[in-house]
Amino acid sequence: MTDKKILTGKKKIIEVGNIKLGGHYSPVYIAGPCAVESKQQIMETALSLKEIGVDILRGGVFKPRTSPYAFQGLGREGLEYLKEAGETAGLPIITELMDEGHMEIVAEYADIIQVGSRNMFNYSLLKALGSVKKPILLKRGMCATINEWMLAAEYIAVHGNQDIILCERGIRGFDNYTRNTLDLAAVPIMQKETGLPVIVDPSHATGIKDLVTPMSRAALACGANGLMIEVHPNPSCALSDGQQSLNFQEYRQLRQDI
Amino acid sequence: MTDKKILTGKKKIIEVGNIKLGGHYSPVYIAGPCAVESKQQIMETALSLKEIGVDILRGGVFKPRTSPYAFQGLGREGLEYLKEAGETAGLPIITELMDEGHMEIVAEYADIIQVGSRNMFNYSLLKALGSVKKPILLKRGMCATINEWMLAAEYIAVHGNQDIILCERGIRGFDNYTRNTLDLAAVPIMQKETGLPVIVDPSHATGIKDLVTPMSRAALACGANGLMIEVHPNPSCALSDGQQSLNFQEYRQLRQDI
Amino acid sequence: MTDKKILTGKKKIIEVGNIKLGGHYSPVYIAGPCAVESKQQIMETALSLKEIGVDILRGGVFKPRTSPYAFQGLGREGLEYLKEAGETAGLPIITELMDEGHMEIVAEYADIIQVGSRNMFNYSLLKALGSVKKPILLKRGMCATINEWMLAAEYIAVHGNQDIILCERGIRGFDNYTRNTLDLAAVPIMQKETGLPVIVDPSHATGIKDLVTPMSRAALACGANGLMIEVHPNPSCALSDGQQSLNFQEYRQLRQDI
Amino acid sequence: MTDKKILTGKKKIIEVGNIKLGGHYSPVYIAGPCAVESKQQIMETALSLKEIGVDILRGGVFKPRTSPYAFQGLGREGLEYLKEAGETAGLPIITELMDEGHMEIVAEYADIIQVGSRNMFNYSLLKALGSVKKPILLKRGMCATINEWMLAAEYIAVHGNQDIILCERGIRGFDNYTRNTLDLAAVPIMQKETGLPVIVDPSHATGIKDLVTPMSRAALACGANGLMIEVHPNPSCALSDGQQSLNFQEYRQLRQDI
Repeated sequence: MTDKKILTGKKKIIEVGNIKLGGHYSPVYIAGPCAVESKQQIMETALSLKEIGVDILRGGVFKPRTSPYAFQGLGREGLEYLKEAGETAGLPIITELMDEGHMEIVAEYADIIQVGSRNMFNYSLLKALGSVKKPILLKRGMCATINEWMLAAEYIAVHGNQDIILCERGIRGFDNYTRNTLDLAAVPIMQKETGLPVIVDPSHATGIKDLVTPMSRAALACGANGLMIEVHPNPSCALSDGQQSLNFQEYRQLRQDI
Repeated sequence: MTDKKILTGKKKIIEVGNIKLGGHYSPVYIAGPCAVESKQQIMETALSLKEIGVDILRGGVFKPRTSPYAFQGLGREGLEYLKEAGETAGLPIITELMDEGHMEIVAEYADIIQVGSRNMFNYSLLKALGSVKKPILLKRGMCATINEWMLAAEYIAVHGNQDIILCERGIRGFDNYTRNTLDLAAVPIMQKETGLPVIVDPSHATGIKDLVTPMSRAALACGANGLMIEVHPNPSCALSDGQQSLNFQEYRQLRQDI
Repeated sequence: MTDKKILTGKKKIIEVGNIKLGGHYSPVYIAGPCAVESKQQIMETALSLKEIGVDILRGGVFKPRTSPYAFQGLGREGLEYLKEAGETAGLPIITELMDEGHMEIVAEYADIIQVGSRNMFNYSLLKALGSVKKPILLKRGMCATINEWMLAAEYIAVHGNQDIILCERGIRGFDNYTRNTLDLAAVPIMQKETGLPVIVDPSHATGIKDLVTPMSRAALACGANGLMIEVHPNPSCALSDGQQSLNFQEYRQLRQDI
Repeated sequence: MTDKKILTGKKKIIEVGNIKLGGHYSPVYIAGPCAVESKQQIMETALSLKEIGVDILRGGVFKPRTSPYAFQGLGREGLEYLKEAGETAGLPIITELMDEGHMEIVAEYADIIQVGSRNMFNYSLLKALGSVKKPILLKRGMCATINEWMLAAEYIAVHGNQDIILCERGIRGFDNYTRNTLDLAAVPIMQKETGLPVIVDPSHATGIKDLVTPMSRAALACGANGLMIEVHPNPSCALSDGQQSLNFQEYRQLRQDI
């Protein structure tokens, strides 16, 4: 059924600065806005999250949006802002790469490179990422089977990079009450099958901010190695995904509740 | 989008003997075999589970099997065995009703009447159960939306019986690695929308016994009011669903791990 | 994978009065309203359809509605109206049975008994229908696999009734642009696997009246043995499923276009 | 719900050499192997198909395979073979592009550039294809909604290239009897919504060669503007997708049956 030769289950720890992800290390918290919208927005977010408690700062600068007319991200300019915010707050940063053409600059600026759900099947990109010397966060494709997801990771590994973090972010189902269906069984399955750390993104999985805390608790209870949570200074004005973003006060509450 | 008039969110506590299900009461453990197979099997199970720790004994006597040639359950004879085992061990019992023709006898013997996933859309049965004076455990249909599940409960309620326990048991998805996709977001959603207690069946949801413990932990972490777990004295010989059943030792371990 | 012993592929022809369904006989047209709403409505429909061209009159009198507060059908009264309309127009009638309690009366009045999508997994009902001396139209469950559907038919057959017509009516998918996803590949598959006639319901499958004609053409092109189409004298006032119903003029056009 | 500004429904005809695709022009037949495997294989296929009847020759040279250890295609060498075969037989050629890095060479050799199902959400690639002066065949993502598919086409259009052919190739569902679920309702929907020609790939949609002919007939019956069919000189030895490929004799039969 599968063809794994490298990621066969041996436990892997990913190091990002002082942070250790995987195995029995404490869960890692990744938070930040869906998109970097301005220098001020990401700086404010970085400093607030640092104070509340976060390990890694996230922020999208190249955005894979369903509509060509939606905000597509600030691009390289956003990358500068994100980098500066991370450095000021003392936080490593993660951002999404959509395109091999930006791989060099993203690899230079970011501490972790994210492959989004829409690109999990983009095998050209996966192959290219094999040559990068930064950890890759590989989100599950919205309709990827467990086996397809494992083999997407294997693509990166066989091309030279075994520093891979997996991220369950919900799969597509028949009900649109939630944005996606969070498949938590994938957490212990992927940990066992690949040995890689698996984190969970409850924000995209549910699309509803009231569900972020209970699903975060569930994710950690079944062994997730970390969480990726959308936090925005002012969710109602966010340029994307406002409905599922927490504000600082809500994120503080989440950290207390867990 | 919905039409609820009765189950609009007011918190409901279900009482079964001394057991209280719902609200902030401790999670309730329901366990037992998929099917009652013999007097000895269910008696041994009941006594072992009582000793390890369980609140309610489950066992199927009318079995909705995909194939007409598969074991269909012991029927009324099985009901006698289940009742006797429950009484001997001092445990309330739950069993599935497939058919209005058996409603009277099941209501007489069982402490909770289960509506299985395949009958969640059987509105004639739901209406009939409105007149029964026993709590109903309503499993989610394998492809039921949140809204359809809420309205199935409303069918029972509007016909006279508001003692309803909901059970998330996994929904159908595109991947067959697990038997179903456990949709834990449904737990807080259904609790809030209906006010009813929601329990989780990780055995049917995953179909893989190694996933029962991590998914049980996740279920409780996001607020489930109980768990329903398949336990069989000898899973490898079970007449149905052996792959997902725990033996006594494994169930004991699960209780310690949680 | 399957357990068929009776419906193993031998070609079966179903006879209803002078109508022959299956094999190389011409496609059979079943049409009528989702629900019988009044004596006048069904009589008018029967006479108009007879004039335009139809083989069998459909009309629901026991309606499996998602909400307990939606119109539930006229019941026995509706059955009288449907019968009278069929006799007046010289058309055999088909109606849905939801409940074993109504089996005797439905079998007495109807020429074909329909098992709806929500009851395909209601094995008690399927077993009971094995003893009836009328053909059964078995709709595919909205999330039934090919194998589950075959075995549901086998349930009826093994209990004594092999006069079964299958009806593909769309399955549940991730997109809600159409009401369901019409799975036309199921037509040649089920014909080959079971030998039974397979008809298609493009009205429920798509939920959009503009798609009824192209999907009817496609169904016949891949070998469907008939079509079941919703027609209502005044779709905008229909008590259920108005959006997908054709009026008489639209049905006349469909017959010309095919 | 959507954001189309360019592809709003105005009928579009795509010209490839003498071939006209769309509107009321006769259906176009595209056929060939899943992968170009050798010079001899593709030359033999091209000549045989030309003799039997085909409009455009297909053949993959860059292959998006689930496993990194599966045959990945012959790459540029395969492109040479495909080009030569097409020229010898007098057939335009179509091949898949996975990667912007190959865009120039593929655009130089191919008459139509295919975007495969796995790259429908690869917005960077879609944007890049806006600048190409060749028609694009855009396959539906395996879990793309109608709206997402329309907007993927809009991405190409807004970046400068409106010569787009859509291809329905089956979507992912809960049953694995067929490889995918062919969603033929998408044909009239996409034609009406975008004005673009829509063709159907029954080979990938079903994954079963016996279903290719009935599904081809159904596709044309509901208005598809063409068919894309996998044909291989010796399907049992094919390096990919042999199960769904027709041999020459079977393709000849298909053309006669339609």
